[in-house]
Amino acid sequence: MREIEALWEDVRELTLGNTSRIERLTSPPSPLRFLRDFVSLNKPCIISNATLHWPALHLWRSDDYLTGSLSSSTVSVHLTPDGRADALALNPAEPPPSLCFASAETRRLPFPEALDLIHRSNAGDNFVAYAQQQNDCFRSEYSALGSDCDSHIQWASEALGCLPEAVNLWIGTHWSETSFHKDHYENLYAVVCGEKHFLLLPPTDVHRMYIGEYPAAQYLYSEETGEFKLELEEPKRWVPWCSVNPNPSQEDLDSEMEKFPLYFNGPKPFECTVKPGEVLFLQSPDDRGLTIAVNYWYDMQYDMKYAYFNFLQSIQYQSLPDPSANETESEEIIKPLPH
Amino acid sequence: MREIEALWEDVRELTLGNTSRIERLTSPPSPLRFLRDFVSLNKPCIISNATLHWPALHLWRSDDYLTGSLSSSTVSVHLTPDGRADALALNPAEPPPSLCFASAETRRLPFPEALDLIHRSNAGDNFVAYAQQQNDCFRSEYSALGSDCDSHIQWASEALGCLPEAVNLWIGTHWSETSFHKDHYENLYAVVCGEKHFLLLPPTDVHRMYIGEYPAAQYLYSEETGEFKLELEEPKRWVPWCSVNPNPSQEDLDSEMEKFPLYFNGPKPFECTVKPGEVLFLQSPDDRGLTIAVNYWYDMQYDMKYAYFNFLQSIQYQSLPDPSANETESEEIIKPLPH
Repeated sequence: MREIEALWEDVRELTLGNTSRIERLTSPPSPLRFLRDFVSLNKPCIISNATLHWPALHLWRSDDYLTGSLSSSTVSVHLTPDGRADALALNPAEPPPSLCFASAETRRLPFPEALDLIHRSNAGDNFVAYAQQQNDCFRSEYSALGSDCDSHIQWASEALGCLPEAVNLWIGTHWSETSFHKDHYENLYAVVCGEKHFLLLPPTDVHRMYIGEYPAAQYLYSEETGEFKLELEEPKRWVPWCSVNPNPSQEDLDSEMEKFPLYFNGPKPFECTVKPGEVLFLQSPDDRGLTIAVNYWYDMQYDMKYAYFNFLQSIQYQSLPDPSANETESEEIIKPLPH
Repeated sequence: MREIEALWEDVRELTLGNTSRIERLTSPPSPLRFLRDFVSLNKPCIISNATLHWPALHLWRSDDYLTGSLSSSTVSVHLTPDGRADALALNPAEPPPSLCFASAETRRLPFPEALDLIHRSNAGDNFVAYAQQQNDCFRSEYSALGSDCDSHIQWASEALGCLPEAVNLWIGTHWSETSFHKDHYENLYAVVCGEKHFLLLPPTDVHRMYIGEYPAAQYLYSEETGEFKLELEEPKRWVPWCSVNPNPSQEDLDSEMEKFPLYFNGPKPFECTVKPGEVLFLQSPDDRGLTIAVNYWYDMQYDMKYAYFNFLQSIQYQSLPDPSANETESEEIIKPLPH
């Protein structure tokens, strides 16, 4: 369906100006400009010098400050063997290349222990710990740090006409990466320490993600053996998830490109790096990297764009078989995703 | 394609709240609210008490004032036999029911003569005159009236971040009606005298309009015979136009409903009446009625919604044949539109 590929191009040309760079503002915009030039265009942007007044920007550089402030706080830590939580992994119950959707083992720990685990993942231990919980954790688990940041992003709240529904804190290392996904939120992502690297695609590219249904599984970490076990949930639960890994290993590259031609042969995703003091505004993010960051989820407008997106997603679209390939190979390219 | 019908419903539910009433504000909104709650949602609204400070509201009630102010102005008048300019009419070169796209005869006349023609259409003469020209005429032909209205709509200009691209004046009688069409503008339509009745459909309903290609034709009025001739343009020029007449005569109703089931069996259009002092904000209008009105066309945002719309329009969609009908009848329902 050529029409869908024209849509990918149109959206890039019209709203993003055919550049693969995310626009960077040198200071916070007025609410009106933010709404008109970014939110209503579904256009991401990075706002520099947005949070320089936050005490967190210097206080949080010190582990002693964090463990002191949070000495009596219990926080959620996600443990995985490789830093890839909520991502596809080999299905433990079936022969490769069958995949499942693997979630981290989540532990609730006193913050000082959690921070120790995070540091140990950096030190080469056989696990990766990531303090995060997408349940408004900054205002609950981390409430002791509340006065170090603004409780909401003033100009964004005014533009969007509401306060954040959830504010989440993320503390990780460069081992943690998040696979392609979408959030139904207006997202303002403020980096406090370190840097965070994002790969972004417009929602109109939904078919390039090859959303498939994968059985849910859970990592279990054993202190005794120091090893992870991955167990399928019982009863089976199917999770729709993006099948594409945008950075396959060199040895997997050819087979991945063959399986997901719409992604690898289509327009490049937008890349950006967000630094301390900067805020990324986005609607359908992928993030990868290490850092401490606070993100503000605002209720999104369930508007005409949302209706269009649902419509687009409801249309079946796989890339056509390459006419130069023989029958068998072509079939492989368009075979349904694992179920 | 059930997905498209789901889209019609979704847009109504999400952005218009499943009512067939257009929201009416009792006073002009702040720029931010206008942008957030209407423009970016593609949601029409009527703003009451919007132009009560315009001198035009009382001055223009007087023909003497208008002819006095415009005594030396030349204006454009559109002449048709029935008030339907830029509308489908029987093709003069082919047997019925072949149709063409008929434009008015346009004359440039001193304003007092133009107003006289308009009054004569009300008095039962065999023509309908409508003073209008969609080329920024209020700021050119009618510049003598400029100080009677605001040069732009303050809160809209602030919200949209620009000044109007064109301001048009419309002076007509209840004989003038405009057929379904779309404008690629943000439109603020201010009624000064009389009332104007609108039928509105969201852009997502594009397939319900049965856009066809019709040969362009022009009315020619002869003072000698007092009759109109309709002549096809040479060389032929094809105009894409909506095939649906939302108010067919009682005798045509059944055949029209059979030809355009997506329109007649789908969700009802939104209806509203705009009164003096009120401004209608809309993006894809149909208007019918009599009045004096000034409308402000602002450049639209060519954004993701626009890209989605183009994509939707590029998808072929005719209603499916009624499975209970026999083969021949079904084929009639889905036959291509006249070309």
